[in-house]
Amino acid sequence: MTDLISVNQALSQILSEFSSLPPEEIEISEALFRTLAEDIHSPFDLPLFSNSSVDGFAVCASKDIRAGLRGNFTLPVVGDIPAGVQTNLRLGKGETARIMTGAPLPEGADAVLPVEDTSYPYRDGSAPLPTEVTFYRFPKPGENVRPRGQDVQKGQKLLIKGRKLQPQDIGMLATLGLDRIPVVRKPRIALFSSGDELLSPGIPPQPGKIFDANSYSLGLLAQREGAEVIRLGVARDQYQAVVDLFEKAKNANTDLILTSAGVSVGAFDFVRQVLEEHGQVKLWRVNMRPGKPLTYGSFAGIPVISLPGNPVSAFVGFLVFVRPVIAKLTGLEPTPPATLPVILEHPVLSDGRESYLRAIVQKTQDGFVARLTGHQGSGNLYSLVQANALLIIPAGVKSLPAGETVQAWLLDDEPLPVLEKPE
Amino acid sequence: MTDLISVNQALSQILSEFSSLPPEEIEISEALFRTLAEDIHSPFDLPLFSNSSVDGFAVCASKDIRAGLRGNFTLPVVGDIPAGVQTNLRLGKGETARIMTGAPLPEGADAVLPVEDTSYPYRDGSAPLPTEVTFYRFPKPGENVRPRGQDVQKGQKLLIKGRKLQPQDIGMLATLGLDRIPVVRKPRIALFSSGDELLSPGIPPQPGKIFDANSYSLGLLAQREGAEVIRLGVARDQYQAVVDLFEKAKNANTDLILTSAGVSVGAFDFVRQVLEEHGQVKLWRVNMRPGKPLTYGSFAGIPVISLPGNPVSAFVGFLVFVRPVIAKLTGLEPTPPATLPVILEHPVLSDGRESYLRAIVQKTQDGFVARLTGHQGSGNLYSLVQANALLIIPAGVKSLPAGETVQAWLLDDEPLPVLEKPE
Repeated sequence: MTDLISVNQALSQILSEFSSLPPEEIEISEALFRTLAEDIHSPFDLPLFSNSSVDGFAVCASKDIRAGLRGNFTLPVVGDIPAGVQTNLRLGKGETARIMTGAPLPEGADAVLPVEDTSYPYRDGSAPLPTEVTFYRFPKPGENVRPRGQDVQKGQKLLIKGRKLQPQDIGMLATLGLDRIPVVRKPRIALFSSGDELLSPGIPPQPGKIFDANSYSLGLLAQREGAEVIRLGVARDQYQAVVDLFEKAKNANTDLILTSAGVSVGAFDFVRQVLEEHGQVKLWRVNMRPGKPLTYGSFAGIPVISLPGNPVSAFVGFLVFVRPVIAKLTGLEPTPPATLPVILEHPVLSDGRESYLRAIVQKTQDGFVARLTGHQGSGNLYSLVQANALLIIPAGVKSLPAGETVQAWLLDDEPLPVLEKPE
Repeated sequence: MTDLISVNQALSQILSEFSSLPPEEIEISEALFRTLAEDIHSPFDLPLFSNSSVDGFAVCASKDIRAGLRGNFTLPVVGDIPAGVQTNLRLGKGETARIMTGAPLPEGADAVLPVEDTSYPYRDGSAPLPTEVTFYRFPKPGENVRPRGQDVQKGQKLLIKGRKLQPQDIGMLATLGLDRIPVVRKPRIALFSSGDELLSPGIPPQPGKIFDANSYSLGLLAQREGAEVIRLGVARDQYQAVVDLFEKAKNANTDLILTSAGVSVGAFDFVRQVLEEHGQVKLWRVNMRPGKPLTYGSFAGIPVISLPGNPVSAFVGFLVFVRPVIAKLTGLEPTPPATLPVILEHPVLSDGRESYLRAIVQKTQDGFVARLTGHQGSGNLYSLVQANALLIIPAGVKSLPAGETVQAWLLDDEPLPVLEKPE
């Protein structure tokens, strides 16, 4: 099969045709896992003002120490500074003020002693502000003070363009007073399956027919990678039915059309034919297993990736080609899934194509070992459900003995078998 | 501080008060990352009927071989079986029928030769059904046939209760014809911050005030773990304001109320006082850093976890206590985040509490090494933004030398530094 393109060559060609989508401005509460479209610099110092890191009593420690204060001593309480106020208090030598966590330090003060280390009855919620308080120890200058600019300086670059935003990042953006931020627009992907044999779930099985799995697994894969998915259902095995769904996809204003089935060598495989006549087929058939009939092209100028119809082939084709395309569209690096070298528990046969085999990877004393999950037919979705990894058998390899090391792609979002559990 | 509870003890006590929420039935297209509430057994064999795994020509290979057919030979084409039909065709010795991938095998047939291995002009989409076809090689009995029940038998348990559903699982459910499935109901979590110093982002900074980060970072953490979050904003530092937001949370029909700030020893910390007077404080102050003032209790019978107000303390408290609670509510194992043993690049000081320090973990030739991300103040969210892990320094430890191994919790959803990249 000399006309088959290698996986890497196909991926490079496909990726070269996509770039990051334009930015849009959204509310930070909607920004989880979105890609930041611009660098974010701090508009001010953080902390914004010197403040107390504890609930306690502020003093002018340097002056007091020079004045000879040490050990136990009692000071007059000359003020009370709750959080959230602007204080005009000026603290002098030998004076103290009650201060709450986060409240601005009064002028002159340079340390705070926690309430726990004073005579103040802090467990009594209704205790009034005392007129004097006894210190059980002497705070060091700077103790429990968060000086202005300690963490971040005005103008400092805090978050870099291209970052996939996590909860802590969005907390940081809030801290900077930002309620809206520029992120890369979500890719819009239209999705349909094709085939007269496909039934939508929710009805009894019918002779000769099977239920459409790909509309669900591919749609949710795309959603998991951050795309907005427009589901268009199933196209019948008729030329015009396929054209109609492509038209619908085009009119839905999509960045990518994703289809499954209809791209092999069957007499009723119209997807490729429609692309040839209404757009372009740029790439057909890749040297991989499963997934060989993969087709890349365009319909009315919109990029199209057509995956094979077998559910495992479609799934693997998605991970190999569509996942990196979505990453690139969303402004992220199109990296492969998390990968781990694993040891084969048993011999593995291949057919010379780059193969993606469903496997269970487990951690043992000898390292990570892998065994295949039963029958590897490309229609057998159960082999994928049982698996936690895909073993990658390189092109040109027809068999590997037990004990050989191969690369595995981890399938689930939490690679639990890989990592240690704490004792 | 003999009144501090250990992290493990506090976690056990809190977890013992939660159990999995009841099931609800939802559409499979909405089920990504939801927890399956019942075992799923297959209602039928898979494949449902014996079918072809290629586009090709079906033959009665066993009979034909016994009849002496070998090498190149030409057979009459007696039928055409597209996918999706119920065929009544009965194939005899020395006959063939065109068959498409996934189409039911006709009675009598036991092998399919791919079109590529025949004289059929498969690259010509408009080629009509031929009256005869030449086979360039002889198919083995069983070749390219997917027998009924090869992958799954009727009644077989395919997906187990408690599984967090991935795209391939939902594809499997579709394959079984299921459009609705029982999943564990999503936890509803009401969230508010408290403090007169808190501003909502989107306005200019004001003297003495800071922007509320926790409403965002905690809300998005809870959302990331699968909860539905009801954001109630910020309670002023007044007893009645805090009561009012708790009432609002109660009326929102929530499974858990999550608050931040107001639980320390400050004179305006009303959250704990409100719990004491309108419900119960079951646990206060844990032997951890940051996060000591953590409070667990109830308001009008609804469980309440009150985290400290400092953004890093709130974040760490969430990971340690709230994340496992959400896991348990959603029917999952309340496991800790993915954990990795790492080597300290430099000495680390602690204060004897169980400490969670922000760090960068990197893979080196010597293994995974960790260094702290600058100033570790619990108000310094930037130290968390820079980190990809939290180092756990056990209780009772006050310092660790460089080279020591500690456990690290990985923070991001993709633990990229941990895993190999393929060459």
